[in-house]
Amino acid sequence: MTYENSTTQALEQLDTFEQLRFALNYAITTIVTNGEISDPPLATEPRGEALATLETELHKLMCAPEIASVLDTLTEAAEQGLLDERRQAQLRIVKRDRAEFLDLPADEAADFARLTNEATQVWMRAKRNNDWASFEPFLERIVESMKRLAAYKNASADPYDVWLNEYEYGSTRPMYDQLFSDIKDCVVPLVADIQKKGWQPSRACLEGHYAHDAQMAFAHDLLVLEGLNMDALVVAESEHPFSEGLVSQCGYVTTHVNENDVVSSLYSVLHEGGHASYSQGVNPELDYCSLGGGSSMGIHESQSRFFENYVGRNEAFVPHLLALLEKHFPGHFAQVDPHDFFLAVNRAEPSLIRTEADELTYPLHVLIRYEIEQLVFSGEAQVSDIPRLWSERYKSYLGVDVPDVSSGPLQDMHWSDGMFGYFPTYVLGSAYGTQFLDAMKSDGVDFDGLVARGDLAPIRAWLGEKIWQHGRSKDPAQLVLDATGSAFDSSHYTRYLEQKFSSIYNL
Amino acid sequence: MTYENSTTQALEQLDTFEQLRFALNYAITTIVTNGEISDPPLATEPRGEALATLETELHKLMCAPEIASVLDTLTEAAEQGLLDERRQAQLRIVKRDRAEFLDLPADEAADFARLTNEATQVWMRAKRNNDWASFEPFLERIVESMKRLAAYKNASADPYDVWLNEYEYGSTRPMYDQLFSDIKDCVVPLVADIQKKGWQPSRACLEGHYAHDAQMAFAHDLLVLEGLNMDALVVAESEHPFSEGLVSQCGYVTTHVNENDVVSSLYSVLHEGGHASYSQGVNPELDYCSLGGGSSMGIHESQSRFFENYVGRNEAFVPHLLALLEKHFPGHFAQVDPHDFFLAVNRAEPSLIRTEADELTYPLHVLIRYEIEQLVFSGEAQVSDIPRLWSERYKSYLGVDVPDVSSGPLQDMHWSDGMFGYFPTYVLGSAYGTQFLDAMKSDGVDFDGLVARGDLAPIRAWLGEKIWQHGRSKDPAQLVLDATGSAFDSSHYTRYLEQKFSSIYNL
Repeated sequence: MTYENSTTQALEQLDTFEQLRFALNYAITTIVTNGEISDPPLATEPRGEALATLETELHKLMCAPEIASVLDTLTEAAEQGLLDERRQAQLRIVKRDRAEFLDLPADEAADFARLTNEATQVWMRAKRNNDWASFEPFLERIVESMKRLAAYKNASADPYDVWLNEYEYGSTRPMYDQLFSDIKDCVVPLVADIQKKGWQPSRACLEGHYAHDAQMAFAHDLLVLEGLNMDALVVAESEHPFSEGLVSQCGYVTTHVNENDVVSSLYSVLHEGGHASYSQGVNPELDYCSLGGGSSMGIHESQSRFFENYVGRNEAFVPHLLALLEKHFPGHFAQVDPHDFFLAVNRAEPSLIRTEADELTYPLHVLIRYEIEQLVFSGEAQVSDIPRLWSERYKSYLGVDVPDVSSGPLQDMHWSDGMFGYFPTYVLGSAYGTQFLDAMKSDGVDFDGLVARGDLAPIRAWLGEKIWQHGRSKDPAQLVLDATGSAFDSSHYTRYLEQKFSSIYNL
Repeated sequence: MTYENSTTQALEQLDTFEQLRFALNYAITTIVTNGEISDPPLATEPRGEALATLETELHKLMCAPEIASVLDTLTEAAEQGLLDERRQAQLRIVKRDRAEFLDLPADEAADFARLTNEATQVWMRAKRNNDWASFEPFLERIVESMKRLAAYKNASADPYDVWLNEYEYGSTRPMYDQLFSDIKDCVVPLVADIQKKGWQPSRACLEGHYAHDAQMAFAHDLLVLEGLNMDALVVAESEHPFSEGLVSQCGYVTTHVNENDVVSSLYSVLHEGGHASYSQGVNPELDYCSLGGGSSMGIHESQSRFFENYVGRNEAFVPHLLALLEKHFPGHFAQVDPHDFFLAVNRAEPSLIRTEADELTYPLHVLIRYEIEQLVFSGEAQVSDIPRLWSERYKSYLGVDVPDVSSGPLQDMHWSDGMFGYFPTYVLGSAYGTQFLDAMKSDGVDFDGLVARGDLAPIRAWLGEKIWQHGRSKDPAQLVLDATGSAFDSSHYTRYLEQKFSSIYNL
């Protein structure tokens, strides 16, 4: 496509803007990632100073009047049908992102950044000391700020809905309500039935001592098995496992090694490797513009849960995991029966900690957070009610007693970081993932056969074509529709859970 | 000191400028450091894209007309005696740095960056393939560009002098000529005398296999022994050892592990730890402004060579090194006689490779480069003459035959990166270091006794007070004068070399 003069000039200006946006994001990401992987303790302050200034530069860039007129020119060009598809998508995303920055007064945004930065430190101490009282006033201020910030973004909408949409574009409370209601109807009786049965598979086959260096070498080979391009990936250690992937040619996957447990790192690596697969699969032509990265948190989570659970906790894949484990921990796994291993890593049992929960009870942990967040945002409950609400719901949905706030509402860092509305994307992602799985099978991909052969390439090819390559150029709803032929439908997920766990527990 | 209104406002604007300059430098340093330590191969391109854009932003910031008027206001205030000492130093350094950027047309600077970026890639291949011809045209373009760029900076000065001054502020050719002439007079006869003697100490006591992980643990403990604050230091691995320290609270030291040689990493770690000591010792109040970092390349090198050689290759320190080696490599060093170890790590022998040269012959390697650089910049020699000039001088000064260009003029990366004029700072730093050593002793520091006791704290305290704390606020000549009571004098260095090696070789 050739453009007329004013359009060409505006596109060049947009490219310059994108170049600087990319560079600032690359710098911020690199600095944050170093903070989690390798920075020494005293680097906290200089890192914070540098980050605050770079964020301010990013804010200035996004709000600059120069880019406004460029976007206006391009919007006119688009209306006259003068932009190709990619440029239209880019224009749409840049305008949307810019609006997010413009909505917020710079000083309120800076105050909120300072508040959450301090609250995160307070939360860390509070969690260590099992001390809700010290954290409560910070959480109150965060909720108040988030209500006010939501009003700037959209004065006519409910504040919680604003934040749901922030983390998953186009998501709504009715959609989540339906999803969680379906999940509750499916999972609560399943969990009750399992408890009634009174039988649980043994985890004895997983026990052992797994040396640190061997676990890191295993993590590397596991990512190769998963299909990652290791020439574009850093594998490292951090307190909390994460992945990061701003461009297709460079991503990070971290894990946390516990020498008494290799399975924890195994599934965490497969999970983060799923995120990294998505990042690596984005069309490289989108790398240096706002269309790089993933469509949404939910879609990203669909890819991580896909590799962690639908591949990694699939019985057909177990022999490949056992072979790799045996290679790195000789003698530990040679005698393990694949079926026993499969049962051990799928033991469904109510527990206290979300990040350690099994595949079946996991969504109930998220549901509890989703319900509490709504109560607090609507004013039906106060921040001070959270520990009580937490204990009541853990008892009611999972049947467990919460012994202290550290294993209760202080277990996750999200709220201290101002991430109300984020949790539901974890479950939405799992549900998206099953819909992708069913669509892939309908498209003729022999999923179970391929997993059994350890040949993930055709599976990755389907995901790459339908999801990964598009980066941010398709919004989640459109991506799901185009990839699967239907709008999002939670029944794929509940059917998956029901079939899998009925079979495991002979229900 | 309180300031009048316009001064106060200008200082605030200067602080804002410094904040952004710091953040851009922090980002650039972090990205470059990651590139050397951990980035995967494919990250080269996105890293380069991000760096190019951030460098352009830095150039824009430095050349912005807004900061010019701030500096004018502050210059007036300084003339009226309205600025305190630190602000005066800051003003001086920012004005000088800004002039460096302003002198160069942005497009010429960008072209030069592109040229050296490409030339570095060409050099790597050329070195691997022992292929001077492919590199020669790039080196010709680099020399031509550097002559042109020097003319922008100072049209009336000799181009090579401009670059000497670039790397060591205030340095001049007469100063270096005197230094190298003194060194030649001292070292060449010493080397000849040693060869006449026909005896060399054995290095047998260093031989062995030293496991990778143990070497990294040893490196950590060695830095603790050297006196580094490990809460402010990252210890990592890279192909070429380096250190980086933008702020006192966060620095990097890397080493390269060869399992057949522990001494190479030992001295490389002590060397980089010397740089890191300097960075950690800068007054933290200078951290976020242009006065952070070190005074010059030469002063920085004086600190690295101080810990590598004047402490680390000092016979009195050997028992502490042996104890630490024995801790990490049990059985290897228990029977080693300290005197034998001392002799082994001080064996003076002409060789081909600068970075592997001993303390005595090292300055001759640098001298050869200094002489060739001058011939090429003056036009007395062509770039195509370099291999011949190199061989002639290595034969004449060191008595060695250069078998190929890879072990000859292609061994160092500096020229491909446009760093003509940089090499001499290595030797100047060694010489500064001996002057500091003598001054410290005159000030009553019991250097040899402290080193023998492994108590480096009083030595570090002297260096901290006289050198480290000042950051860039004192230029090298002033720093040397203030610290030692005299101007730079190369006789400290030649006397040191003469005494040490006459004693070792019984000359």
